[in-house]
Amino acid sequence: MRKEYSQSSLEREHLCDNPFEQFSRWFEEALEFEPHEVNAMTLATVDSNSAPSARVVLLKSFSADGFIFFTNYSSKKGGDISVNNRVALLFYWPQTMRQVRVEGSAFKIDPSESDEYFNSRPALSKASSALSKQSSPLENRDEFDKRVNTLLGSGAEISRPDNWGGYSVKPDHIEFWQGGVGRSHDRFIYSLEGSQEWSITRLYP
Amino acid sequence: MRKEYSQSSLEREHLCDNPFEQFSRWFEEALEFEPHEVNAMTLATVDSNSAPSARVVLLKSFSADGFIFFTNYSSKKGGDISVNNRVALLFYWPQTMRQVRVEGSAFKIDPSESDEYFNSRPALSKASSALSKQSSPLENRDEFDKRVNTLLGSGAEISRPDNWGGYSVKPDHIEFWQGGVGRSHDRFIYSLEGSQEWSITRLYP
Repeated sequence: MRKEYSQSSLEREHLCDNPFEQFSRWFEEALEFEPHEVNAMTLATVDSNSAPSARVVLLKSFSADGFIFFTNYSSKKGGDISVNNRVALLFYWPQTMRQVRVEGSAFKIDPSESDEYFNSRPALSKASSALSKQSSPLENRDEFDKRVNTLLGSGAEISRPDNWGGYSVKPDHIEFWQGGVGRSHDRFIYSLEGSQEWSITRLYP
Repeated sequence: MRKEYSQSSLEREHLCDNPFEQFSRWFEEALEFEPHEVNAMTLATVDSNSAPSARVVLLKSFSADGFIFFTNYSSKKGGDISVNNRVALLFYWPQTMRQVRVEGSAFKIDPSESDEYFNSRPALSKASSALSKQSSPLENRDEFDKRVNTLLGSGAEISRPDNWGGYSVKPDHIEFWQGGVGRSHDRFIYSLEGSQEWSITRLYP
């Protein structure tokens, strides 16, 4: 099942000096070439026993301030972040043979921004988010569906629960990985090592 | 970019009692429906500062003994595992709207098994693996390519370096996530909580 890659190699002079501009460029290219949700990213978190977990979340927006996603703050990932806010994000775009690896720290965004996004969501998603005890055991799926439908049918305005909102991941390392033939991959890592300036280093594949 | 899912929902009675049989079933279905490398999985590791990293590796085989992948033991992931062997694996199959989340412990496999796989690889991959200081800074890509080509051209038998080989991830938690419309996803987690028997619990979406 191993695929051989034919993409041209990546050189330092192809890269923007700023990693967010570089990310933006690759993201646009992924939107053009990838058949599936380009904004699906893996979020890795660590619990209080130093054990990692990984799952897909959807990137909602990004800027030099960070990569933003929304979730239930009381979920497993929210619990992990509350004790250790170091996280990793991974974008994997197989059609363009690329990965972007982000490492940084996660912070809750301003509640008003979470309100704004929550209010923009479809009613079904709002009702489900309001009632889900995300990642906890669920005895009876039908009973949960019934409660969601009752809330939906009530016509009541559904406002954002306190335990639902956004995180912004502020990176200090961003690696761009371009797959190549015969494992001749190109890897460049942008690092903020205590400084305000990003340095760029090529890594062994 | 959010996609609405149309897949039928997942019920307890759809699931095998054994998570490896269940994984095997979903893996076969992914082989049928997914356009890209089905065996690409995210590996999350944790460093000595409890910071996570995530990257894609390729699953080579799986059984009730574990999920096996190969890498450079001196790479960043190898270093992480040497101080903390708790890892997470994530399979994400967007076409079938599925995730499989594995949590467990990683162990080096028997050197003879690593030899066997190494010897089966194409010469270019062997030469590159033998010479790569994976994840370390690489000053000059051309110089590395030249060394790879010199080794290849020498016609010498390339044997497995001591710092290259397989890990087997022995899981204690495996979650099967089936995406649904309006965030009505189905989640079932198989857990080995100190026992020999797998328990299955439905989780809130």
